[in-house]
Amino acid sequence: MKGMFAALILIASHACAVYGQTDSVMMERIYTASFEQGQAYEYLRYLTKKIGHRIAGSQKAEAAVQWSKSLMENLPFEKVYLQDVEVPYWERGKQEQAYVVTTGKPLQVLALGGSVATPLDGLEAEVVEVELLSDLRKHGDAVAGKIVFVNKPWDESIVETGVAYGLNSSQRSRGPAEAAKLGAVAYLFRSLSSSPDDDFPHTGGTRYVAGIDSIPAFAISAVGATLLSQTLKEDPSTRVHLANQSKWKGTVATHNVVAEWKGTQFPDQIITIGGHIDSWDVGEGAHDNGTGTMGTLDAIRTLMRLGYKPRHTIRLVFYMNEENGVHGAVKYGEQAKANGEQLIAAIESDAGGFAPRGFDIKSSADKVAWIQQHWKPLFEQKFWVSRFLQGSPGVDSGVWGAHFPNTLMFNFRPDPHRYFDIHHTAKDVFEAVDRRELQSGVAALASLLYLLDQHIEKVGR
Amino acid sequence: MKGMFAALILIASHACAVYGQTDSVMMERIYTASFEQGQAYEYLRYLTKKIGHRIAGSQKAEAAVQWSKSLMENLPFEKVYLQDVEVPYWERGKQEQAYVVTTGKPLQVLALGGSVATPLDGLEAEVVEVELLSDLRKHGDAVAGKIVFVNKPWDESIVETGVAYGLNSSQRSRGPAEAAKLGAVAYLFRSLSSSPDDDFPHTGGTRYVAGIDSIPAFAISAVGATLLSQTLKEDPSTRVHLANQSKWKGTVATHNVVAEWKGTQFPDQIITIGGHIDSWDVGEGAHDNGTGTMGTLDAIRTLMRLGYKPRHTIRLVFYMNEENGVHGAVKYGEQAKANGEQLIAAIESDAGGFAPRGFDIKSSADKVAWIQQHWKPLFEQKFWVSRFLQGSPGVDSGVWGAHFPNTLMFNFRPDPHRYFDIHHTAKDVFEAVDRRELQSGVAALASLLYLLDQHIEKVGR
Repeated sequence: MKGMFAALILIASHACAVYGQTDSVMMERIYTASFEQGQAYEYLRYLTKKIGHRIAGSQKAEAAVQWSKSLMENLPFEKVYLQDVEVPYWERGKQEQAYVVTTGKPLQVLALGGSVATPLDGLEAEVVEVELLSDLRKHGDAVAGKIVFVNKPWDESIVETGVAYGLNSSQRSRGPAEAAKLGAVAYLFRSLSSSPDDDFPHTGGTRYVAGIDSIPAFAISAVGATLLSQTLKEDPSTRVHLANQSKWKGTVATHNVVAEWKGTQFPDQIITIGGHIDSWDVGEGAHDNGTGTMGTLDAIRTLMRLGYKPRHTIRLVFYMNEENGVHGAVKYGEQAKANGEQLIAAIESDAGGFAPRGFDIKSSADKVAWIQQHWKPLFEQKFWVSRFLQGSPGVDSGVWGAHFPNTLMFNFRPDPHRYFDIHHTAKDVFEAVDRRELQSGVAALASLLYLLDQHIEKVGR
Repeated sequence: MKGMFAALILIASHACAVYGQTDSVMMERIYTASFEQGQAYEYLRYLTKKIGHRIAGSQKAEAAVQWSKSLMENLPFEKVYLQDVEVPYWERGKQEQAYVVTTGKPLQVLALGGSVATPLDGLEAEVVEVELLSDLRKHGDAVAGKIVFVNKPWDESIVETGVAYGLNSSQRSRGPAEAAKLGAVAYLFRSLSSSPDDDFPHTGGTRYVAGIDSIPAFAISAVGATLLSQTLKEDPSTRVHLANQSKWKGTVATHNVVAEWKGTQFPDQIITIGGHIDSWDVGEGAHDNGTGTMGTLDAIRTLMRLGYKPRHTIRLVFYMNEENGVHGAVKYGEQAKANGEQLIAAIESDAGGFAPRGFDIKSSADKVAWIQQHWKPLFEQKFWVSRFLQGSPGVDSGVWGAHFPNTLMFNFRPDPHRYFDIHHTAKDVFEAVDRRELQSGVAALASLLYLLDQHIEKVGR
């Protein structure tokens, strides 16, 4: 009996060793294939250099959709299709102008996404500077007729720059409406940049509230904000000139791009992977989110090239309009719910293409612990991917996840140090992406996809 | 009794919470100070832009020594001094020339450190290409009178680029002597670059064996190596022209730079921290190793600025001549041994200034496990530093550590993806360093230094 028990243990531990070994051998092959034959970087070169930035509703966004579809059609997916999405189309118009009236000193600005235009020859007004929107109340009637300037410095002490971003991003989205309510004529917002020495303005979404007159809204560079603040200290009656020609151009019919790699064992159980294909209308949308779309596509291509056959259906989704409306993710969720689909897991990549660090996991603590115990060791020492923590899914997964609260969701986390130096700026170009870092991320994504497909039934049991 | 026991547990767990909390509060302060008031980046700017590259024995290396000493003297160290080191001085001379004779096509090369010169008007010969030095034997007498070209591609599949470097670096150091033994007239070595698209040559040390005639030795860029290999396939009798004017210029008296911050409790127990101050003679020695010296200096400055008083003596050492001789570390070890010093711990930074990932630890498995259990949690989630693995110390610590086998040694590990794109090239300049990444590393170094000073008596108990 004792001997038989020992034998059983031997078999079990042998099986376990073989099982773990299979995974690590497969991951070895994935990493080698990604570094040596990966295509994400070349795909990205095309997307950024041949198509360029691509705000939802623009012709370039639709060009990116059509080109992505053709890329997917050249791979052995069973099904590639477009999912209709209606998006509001906002156009920046000609380049913004901003300067300090007395000195003529130019200020680097970009209209915030969604901003209305100034009069054709611009506007000119005094400035009320605050750090927080909530401080505006103190100024009472003094705000009327002025430019509200929200100048809250970035909290440099936070390593996880996304957290620092989150601390202040609501002042970007809520600000114009609140300033308008008090009679302000324009809104000037210190850019969400992680460097105080950054003279590039960072755009981003804002929103207006129905029933309140809209006012033009701008992001000003960190350097410009510091300069303006100093100027205001010296002369509080300093006037600033602002001009932009942005406008909403109604609704445009566009698409999510979807491709399906059919599962051999559980074809009705779907693992969604992807990121948003639209970008802001400056730079080239390289890290945000060319790397996320091209990276997830290349992760699947890598598995295909290795002859892998998925057990579950793997569905690649390029969401439209994450940046200013999230209509693509809304549509994806509604459709999936209407179809009664089983979306068992999701991976999103929308945090840049820097060196991969890990994944935030939206799931219960016990499932996260199981993943830390079983999968983290496969990544940690050899591949330098070690962050597997409970956290939020990406924006798109989060939106469609409202219909699918039990889906196990992963949010890819590249290194956060440099992302907010370039985020939503003219600096977000192909040259800011390093091939090794990008392909290392592709390998991490492909490895997670493989592990999920092989072992999802075991997670948290 | 039971009640008393419970009370004791309560007290113990409270004390423990306070103890852990003290550390995390201190680390919070360290990170904030490093990001907001850190000086490493500005120190680095001076070192790279005002002094520049600084090969051991050169006037610039000595200028870096004197300037470093003055930096240290401006901080509240108890003692700042120079330690005499004799180094062999090798000078590159005027820029190398290399081209394919038939086509005139230029090849990007750098003489390897230690190389002798070609005749003044260069040399010209046919080329024997091999991947491995051991393959040379197959060519027998055919090597005599030719240029040996070792063209082993970088193994791109390895995330830890230092491992890929190590796989091939001995062919750089051993190659010229082995080729000379077979009668070769010159040695051409494919650069240790992590990118096949890199057209910059990467220099590095090589060595000659007494009694064998020296031959000129060069690193050729990866792009150049691929081109030459292709040319040789088309015409095996292709001749290459090579010219360099490098020479050894005898021995020069120079220095390690040392500063001591005296321990309040155990002044005779010394924690050594630092990196090498010399660099190769191309680029600006920014990542190798401006970031290591300026980073460790700034880590100490940060603790000083926070009013910290060390329990043990903290000794900052800028080693001379790591790149081509390691004479500084040899001297440091001999001196410390002669003085009977207690070198209880060491931290070395010599792997670049990219985003910090962790530390390799030279110690027993149980001590490493203790550190993983007690210190890693302080770094991991909040500061994104999670790699605490048993491993090798840095080169300098490794050398002097021969006299101190029980010293607990840490080797700082920044992200490895991009390091060998720029290592030992003209690309290793200030602009390749990101301030946030560098200061994040400074904070990690200062935090580890603080933890060691506070708790080293507990490690592994």
